[in-house]
Amino acid sequence: MAGSTIGTIFKITTWGESHGKGIGVVIDGCPAGLTLCEDDIQQYLNRRKPGQSKYTTPRKEDDQVEILSGVFEGRTTGTPISLVVYNQNQKSKDYSEIASYYRPGHADYTFDCKYGFRDYRGGGRSSGRETIGRVAAGAVAAKILSQLGITLLSYTKSIGPVSIQADAFDPAQINENALYMPDQEAARKAASYLEQCMADQNSSGGVVECIISGMMPGIGDPVFEKLNANLAKAVCSIGAVKGFEIGDGFAVSSATGLTNNDAFYTDADGQVKKQTNHAGGILGGMSDGSPIVLRAAIKPTPSIASTQHTINRDGENIDINIHGRHDPIIVPRAVVVVESMAAITVLDALLVNMTARLDKIKEFYNR
Amino acid sequence: MAGSTIGTIFKITTWGESHGKGIGVVIDGCPAGLTLCEDDIQQYLNRRKPGQSKYTTPRKEDDQVEILSGVFEGRTTGTPISLVVYNQNQKSKDYSEIASYYRPGHADYTFDCKYGFRDYRGGGRSSGRETIGRVAAGAVAAKILSQLGITLLSYTKSIGPVSIQADAFDPAQINENALYMPDQEAARKAASYLEQCMADQNSSGGVVECIISGMMPGIGDPVFEKLNANLAKAVCSIGAVKGFEIGDGFAVSSATGLTNNDAFYTDADGQVKKQTNHAGGILGGMSDGSPIVLRAAIKPTPSIASTQHTINRDGENIDINIHGRHDPIIVPRAVVVVESMAAITVLDALLVNMTARLDKIKEFYNR
Amino acid sequence: MAGSTIGTIFKITTWGESHGKGIGVVIDGCPAGLTLCEDDIQQYLNRRKPGQSKYTTPRKEDDQVEILSGVFEGRTTGTPISLVVYNQNQKSKDYSEIASYYRPGHADYTFDCKYGFRDYRGGGRSSGRETIGRVAAGAVAAKILSQLGITLLSYTKSIGPVSIQADAFDPAQINENALYMPDQEAARKAASYLEQCMADQNSSGGVVECIISGMMPGIGDPVFEKLNANLAKAVCSIGAVKGFEIGDGFAVSSATGLTNNDAFYTDADGQVKKQTNHAGGILGGMSDGSPIVLRAAIKPTPSIASTQHTINRDGENIDINIHGRHDPIIVPRAVVVVESMAAITVLDALLVNMTARLDKIKEFYNR
Amino acid sequence: MAGSTIGTIFKITTWGESHGKGIGVVIDGCPAGLTLCEDDIQQYLNRRKPGQSKYTTPRKEDDQVEILSGVFEGRTTGTPISLVVYNQNQKSKDYSEIASYYRPGHADYTFDCKYGFRDYRGGGRSSGRETIGRVAAGAVAAKILSQLGITLLSYTKSIGPVSIQADAFDPAQINENALYMPDQEAARKAASYLEQCMADQNSSGGVVECIISGMMPGIGDPVFEKLNANLAKAVCSIGAVKGFEIGDGFAVSSATGLTNNDAFYTDADGQVKKQTNHAGGILGGMSDGSPIVLRAAIKPTPSIASTQHTINRDGENIDINIHGRHDPIIVPRAVVVVESMAAITVLDALLVNMTARLDKIKEFYNR
Repeated sequence: MAGSTIGTIFKITTWGESHGKGIGVVIDGCPAGLTLCEDDIQQYLNRRKPGQSKYTTPRKEDDQVEILSGVFEGRTTGTPISLVVYNQNQKSKDYSEIASYYRPGHADYTFDCKYGFRDYRGGGRSSGRETIGRVAAGAVAAKILSQLGITLLSYTKSIGPVSIQADAFDPAQINENALYMPDQEAARKAASYLEQCMADQNSSGGVVECIISGMMPGIGDPVFEKLNANLAKAVCSIGAVKGFEIGDGFAVSSATGLTNNDAFYTDADGQVKKQTNHAGGILGGMSDGSPIVLRAAIKPTPSIASTQHTINRDGENIDINIHGRHDPIIVPRAVVVVESMAAITVLDALLVNMTARLDKIKEFYNR
Repeated sequence: MAGSTIGTIFKITTWGESHGKGIGVVIDGCPAGLTLCEDDIQQYLNRRKPGQSKYTTPRKEDDQVEILSGVFEGRTTGTPISLVVYNQNQKSKDYSEIASYYRPGHADYTFDCKYGFRDYRGGGRSSGRETIGRVAAGAVAAKILSQLGITLLSYTKSIGPVSIQADAFDPAQINENALYMPDQEAARKAASYLEQCMADQNSSGGVVECIISGMMPGIGDPVFEKLNANLAKAVCSIGAVKGFEIGDGFAVSSATGLTNNDAFYTDADGQVKKQTNHAGGILGGMSDGSPIVLRAAIKPTPSIASTQHTINRDGENIDINIHGRHDPIIVPRAVVVVESMAAITVLDALLVNMTARLDKIKEFYNR
Repeated sequence: MAGSTIGTIFKITTWGESHGKGIGVVIDGCPAGLTLCEDDIQQYLNRRKPGQSKYTTPRKEDDQVEILSGVFEGRTTGTPISLVVYNQNQKSKDYSEIASYYRPGHADYTFDCKYGFRDYRGGGRSSGRETIGRVAAGAVAAKILSQLGITLLSYTKSIGPVSIQADAFDPAQINENALYMPDQEAARKAASYLEQCMADQNSSGGVVECIISGMMPGIGDPVFEKLNANLAKAVCSIGAVKGFEIGDGFAVSSATGLTNNDAFYTDADGQVKKQTNHAGGILGGMSDGSPIVLRAAIKPTPSIASTQHTINRDGENIDINIHGRHDPIIVPRAVVVVESMAAITVLDALLVNMTARLDKIKEFYNR
Repeated sequence: MAGSTIGTIFKITTWGESHGKGIGVVIDGCPAGLTLCEDDIQQYLNRRKPGQSKYTTPRKEDDQVEILSGVFEGRTTGTPISLVVYNQNQKSKDYSEIASYYRPGHADYTFDCKYGFRDYRGGGRSSGRETIGRVAAGAVAAKILSQLGITLLSYTKSIGPVSIQADAFDPAQINENALYMPDQEAARKAASYLEQCMADQNSSGGVVECIISGMMPGIGDPVFEKLNANLAKAVCSIGAVKGFEIGDGFAVSSATGLTNNDAFYTDADGQVKKQTNHAGGILGGMSDGSPIVLRAAIKPTPSIASTQHTINRDGENIDINIHGRHDPIIVPRAVVVVESMAAITVLDALLVNMTARLDKIKEFYNR
């Protein structure tokens, strides 16, 4: 089915396979008048590039984005923005082995069940490269949000057993370490942990956190289109995500009303604030003006060098060793993907929200 | 905006407020030929009824569902099924106090920010009664699923600090205690915990778990319409949900590839199986044939009798005491709501999946 | 499939069958703050009521609309507006004959092909009564449009061979004759023609025209969501419509560029105008500020008393006589239905358009 | 807004401007397993190519389509098919004049009203080149339909005052003349008429007809998603279309029930047939098994060499002469565009229809 489109007004459609001709996205519904150039997008794409540390694929993916439509004289025109990253490395190495069996933790088996066959080269459509389209679109969404005073801060919250410490939290550290952790000491410990994973031909999971600041209250809708519900879908649609939280998340299950309720107050400047933010910036599906805080649980890279048991396409039980070099962790590269999906979702909700009140509509149209 | 509809083919639209004339749902896209009567739906609604134990509202809501359209001579016709539950208790008690301020943990403030005013009677559209429409539709979806050999098992996994124990897990217990816990001892402890919460004018959160068995593999889509992504949205769109997990969920963040990958094998009957199910029955967004396991974190009831700080509509800082009797916990009543949203989502994915392969389409049309 | 919903932001979902419990519509995405009462809607419904002249069904359908949700203290809340008209006349007369065969020009055969069976009582879901939901929603849309300075004028343009004459066009006449024709003489001739049709146990078709005035330019989208394309869909989704035109419509096929192009000019007040309006108020899919002019061709009532040839459900060739009394023409009652679908479509386009420009978005959010 | 996507299951998203880097389409929801190569698509694109006769632009547009994704080893994979045609001719000739004023009959003015500015090079997004994406997607849809036994026949029905004659109708002639008319004599007369238009610096409109044969009955939905309603939208979304008809179209307005009703009968082979096909193959929004017949009225090319009155961007009244060479008629090139939109719409309806009946769903899943 048509499952490669997301969004109501700011709508993106991604396409492309790992080893096809390229990966791309069409952004439809981007407002006209945004100054936009390839470098705006490239900066986001560079954050998911491999080959930047020993914890990511040594493959050099020189992913250069190209704007094919929708921008005229440096500004978006309101018509679809088509973005493409051509694949540099399509040469057909021998995939006959990988084509023959189902890798544990991958989509090989389910693809065959659904479609009868699959593009097995490098994971095909289920490759991590699919996220290029998401990030390219996320860069555009984030640029618009920044012009509306809304900013996103994303980072690695934990890797395996190593979490950042609240009292050591320092956003300035995020880009200072290859793991995008806002805590120098945690980053050091996580690096050691990953070294061990690699030595063990093993891999690690982790948690990404994203904070969205500057939100006006009232964005999102009360029932199925709750802002948190759409964030949940957007984030859980990222390949390796197995859990999603907003605000205190699963911790609310052992909290009480007295500790979990956030008291409203009016501050000295007459601004409505909350004394705490257990809700993570969303009440009843609508933003409450506090920062939106969300987290995604990312599973360990399923491609590991250790011997694994599985079946081949004929259903025979076999042991396999997956060749090639694979990231021992996906989390750092997933940070910008989570941020991108959050940006796309929040922007879409902001646009949709413009139609909520008749008085505002009259004002908009001067009638 | 139009946020009260969910689904692509099996599409539901809910309407109604807590103290309006009624609550309803229109199910559009229900396949023709399902035998359906009001009792099929009533059984589901009864599972969310209050007044069944001391942990739920003593209000007697005698919610009787009525089928207004879409069923002819006992079978669904393929046209929209309109279901309504008329509100029995609309008499306007004095809501002037609740209208004047913003309850912490509720949607009062965000509603006013979005729409300029709100129906403040009993929570209006944000009331728990909104879930009546979801459950009524869920009953229909679940009935269709059962005819396709797919069943859902849902229960309370934890309340506050009390979790069910794996070795005491007994589905037969679920309907034997007011908390819907499949563990007699845990149910007993949770009951004590809730007694204490009530004594403290406080409330508790918890976790609901749902297991979907009998799924054929290949259901769901690889990118934005991943089955887990749509389950995440559907479940997170329930009022009090703050977290969502599939399979091992957040535990994957501290797992490794070796422990988290589920090995495929072919069993003695030639069936493809997995030795474990950390993935929770979904790989790459598509069902893998194992049971789908999902969890939702439910926050403590925000309406508590203790004094709380907040602001009124004029922005003045005030202390409030919320009157009336409120459930000290939402979790038991949320069990059937989570199950309903899961059923709706899975059925929709099953219908959408029918168009995935050209050979199957030719076969369907005998061409 | 789910085919009973239309619209992107102002989204309506209709339900109900001719002889079921009722007919209804849920309007989701109606802006908050509109004053609305049942009488606003009833006025529109009354325009499609039968029994008002000898050219319409003598059945007395006392269709009273009830607002079930979405309106609080006389104003829309932004949440779904559920409207219902209960059917007064559900008593089961004997439908066994009509159930046994396929009426020419009706949906009996196609319903059975699609769903395997059908609700045959009075046409079921394909009855003209299905339009009650459309008109109820159209009344709401039209009320909002009127507050934005946009008005709709609809009438019968022709009945059988009798057309209104341009030089006799008088909108004041529309409500002065049972046929809603803005030309007294044409109405008189059309009445005679219909008398003859009735005497012949026959029926007549006709054309409805709708003019939408007060449109701001730039509403609609350039590609698939052209305003004229959405109007075409909305109008052609009305049961008996077989053709749709915008502006000069089919006459453009024999026109030339010189005669068909509308020259722009700036008038004395500095307003941009067009010297002619062959385009019917839409250029490139977007409104150009001139009145939008559209027409719908309505087929003759298929239910006629004359003997007709058809087949029964067993496929046997038979002759039938359809009993009961049927309108010799649908056109006058279709006028308000066409207007309603036009209002719904234009309002939706106006809402969607608010997100087209970044500068306007910044202004909207004061950022 | 996001207006460049159409379809529910077979969903296409087009992008690109006349003088940007290229024109493309992403087809999402194409069933897996279709053999597909670039030549399948190129054949359709060639039918809309200019430069093939003196009635079309002498510009040589060597539009070569490239498949960027979604096809593996010659078969569609079920994932998005990205198709692109790079623009050969982007050199920036001087567009300053055309940028300065609003051409009558074009979207220049409405684009500026909506977005504040426009890509004025060659019509930008409103150029006829936008249809490349539609035709590329249409080629894929038509290939699938042909494998289901459904074929489309499209042609020019009239040009200016010259119509094909029913008794001279010969499909074999369609590709024998540059105007795609199935009537040799009419083609000759139309050619003369166009010569005169060109001599007069004028242009002509016309009518395209499309016949869809081999349809199974029951395709389409009874209310808003009527097959004819979706065909109306799809066809009216083509730039120059001002009218749409199904079956007898506007002629039904002067018909009677006796002449317009199509009698059902069972033929000697036990097949259900209709003695006539005034309905054009659709009853109650669903296909009835007879050929679907539709027509589109195409307006005269608005770009004509004659002097025209208009305004410039400053609102000053001016006279203009549009330079360059333009087709005196769009109709022949629109034939394949109408066919493409029809193919896309019918295929989508066929896919959606698979979910209509529970018994068929059980059978599909062998449960």
